[in-house]
Amino acid sequence: MYKKIDQKDIEFLKSVCGVENILVGEEINEDYSHDELGGVEKYPEVLVNVHSTEEVSKIMKYAYENNIPVTPRGQGTGLVGAAVAIYGGIMINLSQMNKIIELDEENLTLTVEPGVLLMTIGQYVSERDLFYPPDPGEKSATIGGNINTNAGGMRAVKYGVTRDYVRGLEVVLANGEVINVGGKVVKNSSGYSIKDLLVGSEGTLGIVTKAILKLLPLPKKDISLLIPFSDLGTAIETVPKIIKSKCIPTAIEFMERDVILAAEEFLGKKFPDNTSDAYLLLKFDGNSKEEIEKAYDQVAKLCLECGAYDVFISDTQERNESIWSARGAFLEAIKATTTEMDECDVVVPRDKVAEFIKFTNELQETLNVRIKSFGHAGDGNLHIYILRDELNKSEWNTKLKETFEKMYEKSRELNGQVSGEHGIGYAKKEYLNESQSESYMEIIKNIKLAFDSKNILNPGKIY
Amino acid sequence: MYKKIDQKDIEFLKSVCGVENILVGEEINEDYSHDELGGVEKYPEVLVNVHSTEEVSKIMKYAYENNIPVTPRGQGTGLVGAAVAIYGGIMINLSQMNKIIELDEENLTLTVEPGVLLMTIGQYVSERDLFYPPDPGEKSATIGGNINTNAGGMRAVKYGVTRDYVRGLEVVLANGEVINVGGKVVKNSSGYSIKDLLVGSEGTLGIVTKAILKLLPLPKKDISLLIPFSDLGTAIETVPKIIKSKCIPTAIEFMERDVILAAEEFLGKKFPDNTSDAYLLLKFDGNSKEEIEKAYDQVAKLCLECGAYDVFISDTQERNESIWSARGAFLEAIKATTTEMDECDVVVPRDKVAEFIKFTNELQETLNVRIKSFGHAGDGNLHIYILRDELNKSEWNTKLKETFEKMYEKSRELNGQVSGEHGIGYAKKEYLNESQSESYMEIIKNIKLAFDSKNILNPGKIY
Repeated sequence: MYKKIDQKDIEFLKSVCGVENILVGEEINEDYSHDELGGVEKYPEVLVNVHSTEEVSKIMKYAYENNIPVTPRGQGTGLVGAAVAIYGGIMINLSQMNKIIELDEENLTLTVEPGVLLMTIGQYVSERDLFYPPDPGEKSATIGGNINTNAGGMRAVKYGVTRDYVRGLEVVLANGEVINVGGKVVKNSSGYSIKDLLVGSEGTLGIVTKAILKLLPLPKKDISLLIPFSDLGTAIETVPKIIKSKCIPTAIEFMERDVILAAEEFLGKKFPDNTSDAYLLLKFDGNSKEEIEKAYDQVAKLCLECGAYDVFISDTQERNESIWSARGAFLEAIKATTTEMDECDVVVPRDKVAEFIKFTNELQETLNVRIKSFGHAGDGNLHIYILRDELNKSEWNTKLKETFEKMYEKSRELNGQVSGEHGIGYAKKEYLNESQSESYMEIIKNIKLAFDSKNILNPGKIY
Repeated sequence: MYKKIDQKDIEFLKSVCGVENILVGEEINEDYSHDELGGVEKYPEVLVNVHSTEEVSKIMKYAYENNIPVTPRGQGTGLVGAAVAIYGGIMINLSQMNKIIELDEENLTLTVEPGVLLMTIGQYVSERDLFYPPDPGEKSATIGGNINTNAGGMRAVKYGVTRDYVRGLEVVLANGEVINVGGKVVKNSSGYSIKDLLVGSEGTLGIVTKAILKLLPLPKKDISLLIPFSDLGTAIETVPKIIKSKCIPTAIEFMERDVILAAEEFLGKKFPDNTSDAYLLLKFDGNSKEEIEKAYDQVAKLCLECGAYDVFISDTQERNESIWSARGAFLEAIKATTTEMDECDVVVPRDKVAEFIKFTNELQETLNVRIKSFGHAGDGNLHIYILRDELNKSEWNTKLKETFEKMYEKSRELNGQVSGEHGIGYAKKEYLNESQSESYMEIIKNIKLAFDSKNILNPGKIY
């Protein structure tokens, strides 16, 4: 059992971080009791706003000696309850550790604190003609959160995921010790890759207090194609053919008409087209129009051969931004159409996306529940939302569980994985458990204990 | 203490793999007592040629129950003794598990057994207009070996390392259980990334019996630039400027005249130029000449401004192959000039390469030992060879230890890592230990125990 927070603990925390950075009881804003989806709720006993690695280290050392659970938190934009303090204890809010520390142009790295927002990084580097490729829809997430879920986003088709852009980390361990893994080096085969293990570990193995990110030169030109189809099945079945054609776009998203309408209403802005039932949205980037036009010409032709109604080419900055910002708002837009929702973030092989979406459409009928989806057709990572609408609490819980069980079962059948980028957190633990063997889960547990033998760091998550 | 192999064990192994695949005592070829550098020597008690995952699983289950150490082995092209059976026991030779299992063009994956050679993969995919980017010099290594050292190679500047191209693995654990990690999926945030931990684990956490590799479309055009400089310092100092110019080549190698002369003699073929003291060798690739020519023009100009004597452009297939095959032969060519050698595979930030090379040149003088280097200037990964020449065994050991200590100390000073791509194995354990904190090494050890509580899988390596 964990120790409960008492006055002595509060005094210690105040001595480390200053009185103004320690919040208890009713001083803690309701936001800190849940994350973006809200299905998992619990207040921490104390919320601490930290401003340095040294503070985090001192808190962890104290928590370790006193057996107090600690939950690290960024902007709380997660969707699986990973940043909820389900055992109470201390919540360390890292969002004020938000400095960009160094841009190193000779090594093409950016060193940041964990609380820097994804949108801040995007703007900072693009102003300098540089590029941080990971591009999750939620731009107000912190980079620390992105690292902890190994966020992928829309450009993963061409550029990969967050892990591919983390070169080095400074991490505070459960016992308060500070370690550095990786660095500015481009290659590393010096023992087990602790860096790659920490990325995606959802704050259960260590607290990231600094990250060295890999940058690329900014592609000078990008164009987007918005491609209407008669139905989603036809649209999605085109995607493996695009991949097979060897013209790999930067991003391939799919969307349905009603999600577009919801986004138009949510943003109060028109989408370039909303007359068809289903769309693919593609992006190509490169250093010149000539470099990319052969690829997008070929893909446009292929889509028309596969039944697309038309191909709308968007090559102005303004128009591109309007399309992609609408895409970025889909989650919020769907959320605004219902009372509550939960999500399924499975990833399946690219050629199984159509089958999975067809399955969820059938589920909508057989289980009589409203399901909306959009997602990354190009990398097989789907974002499927189950909407509560007018269901009462108990009906909702039953319906949700039933829907999830069928979806994750289908995903396993298609050699998919439980989460493509949102993580396991608290909400998806049982589905991870069902998807893996006992031995595998035993390894996961033993790795956790290798880092945190007292299980005080974000306990109750992942396994 | 481990159990010694007895007749009963031999009978068991014969019953699993067939009499012809079990070799003991003098039947074991001397090759299996060491790897490519030969500094670490020990025969296994029994050598087993395996042909299926099931055989590997049965052997591990038996070894686990009987406490017998097992060393997995591919082609033995390693350089740090990782595939040497330093505790005797069973050596599992995986090089006959060498089938290409499946090319999936819709998911752009290639599924292979671990014994497939790197050169076989390269040829197989390029014939199908596809591309497996990792490109270590040693093309006769197995893909299993490449995965276990997280080999990087020459194209890492643009394309990254082996880990970036491993999507999924089938692995036999120490207790004989078979697990699958990752898969054909492009993204994955489903618990700790066991896949990324296994890559680079040098056969100590599990035995890779199948790998799903990520492929890219084959770039249709590549050109190489061979750029002579008056001296190595001037050449290498140009590299961070190239990176800073935001024209990122596929590869940036450095080489000195005497290494080129050695390669010419070793191969019996002329290199395009050998009149200057130092060279950079660059490659650019893309889908058309137009796409890449702006980049290489700009880099060529930059090199001339930085003191290059000339820029030789090579854009025919034949000429490119002759240059890069010479580069691929450097290690063997240097080896042929001396009696014995050992290597240092440090990786430092790209802007510290010049300083490190200057340091090794000074060491050559102060320690009076012959040192040759070449390597990946573009990613900071150096291959530095210390040559024994006429030193007697005891002088050699002393000299080598002294040289290594100074080099690894310098690497730590420059925020480098012990190994960029060759791994730690047996030979570099003390330098890994010196470069990391006690807590860090404790985590490494605990991770090993999380997978292999009896420490039977390739024991005595990494830590």
